Amino acid sequence: MELKSKIRVIEDFPEKGISFKDITTLINDGKAFSEAVNLIVEDLKYREVEYIAGPEARGFLFGATVAYALGIGFIPVRKPGKLPAETISYEYELEYGTNTLEIHKDSIEKGKKVAIVDDLLATGGTILSTAKLIESIGGEVVAMEFLIELESLKGREKLNKYHVNSLIKYEK
Amino acid sequence: MELKSKIRVIEDFPEKGISFKDITTLINDGKAFSEAVNLIVEDLKYREVEYIAGPEARGFLFGATVAYALGIGFIPVRKPGKLPAETISYEYELEYGTNTLEIHKDSIEKGKKVAIVDDLLATGGTILSTAKLIESIGGEVVAMEFLIELESLKGREKLNKYHVNSLIKYEK
Repeated sequence: MELKSKIRVIEDFPEKGISFKDITTLINDGKAFSEAVNLIVEDLKYREVEYIAGPEARGFLFGATVAYALGIGFIPVRKPGKLPAETISYEYELEYGTNTLEIHKDSIEKGKKVAIVDDLLATGGTILSTAKLIESIGGEVVAMEFLIELESLKGREKLNKYHVNSLIKYEK
Repeated sequence: MELKSKIRVIEDFPEKGISFKDITTLINDGKAFSEAVNLIVEDLKYREVEYIAGPEARGFLFGATVAYALGIGFIPVRKPGKLPAETISYEYELEYGTNTLEIHKDSIEKGKKVAIVDDLLATGGTILSTAKLIESIGGEVVAMEFLIELESLKGREKLNKYHVNSLIKYEK
């Protein structure tokens, strides 16, 4: 199956000039969704991954599903104030302003191997921050898996110390 | 496995007097997460479900995973402004103020059977709104599945025209 054909591209969303990649049409299609999850699972098979982590909200869609397919646990990375127990937070720069992500402090035992799964690799800021949170509580990030990569934004360069895999590539 | 033992109860979160049911400890445990998903799948097995729908963000964790396990598509129900194509929205009352949810207008073909999956059944407001959105675009809601049910909040009464199943019950 050509997974790319299942993505709906919407121009000027959320703002003028942005060509938004709508993943809901792929997830809506049971065969395409299964195939995407299975391709990520395939790439993780020999990496001895012990946890999957993913940022809210779209990162939950593929992240939790890949964790289930591998029979391992999922760790949500969330916006401030959403996780009820003790958290570590990390603030990072956006084009305009900053964003903050949190992880539960006790969610990963020291030395455990973690793969990060998200729908989209753009500039890589969210994913690098997710990796820093995981590392700050003692986890080892062994892979980063994406449904879509926007290549001209060069997120992959920012993540060059990690194994990065994406299923569908766009120029921007 | 006693799934209830995997839930962490946190008192006075997000505000005083609320005994918050933290599902992250269950999802963090690969065996418990698998078992919970499989129990939901089991209850849906003979209902000829064609789509799973779930409200963001925690509804994505179990919803997308159950969809994958059944080999069918998942439909995200989101807060306003998050879905990029044409949407229908539905506003409902909360204890203080209102909340609005949206669904993509073209996400379900007329007459398709849909199960709603979420982590928590409390008063039932979010789920009833999710059902109304699905029905307004022609879907038929054939089941509602929850990880946790807070029984004294009587959400089940509000949803009495539907098949409702929950895996873990608390008084409140």
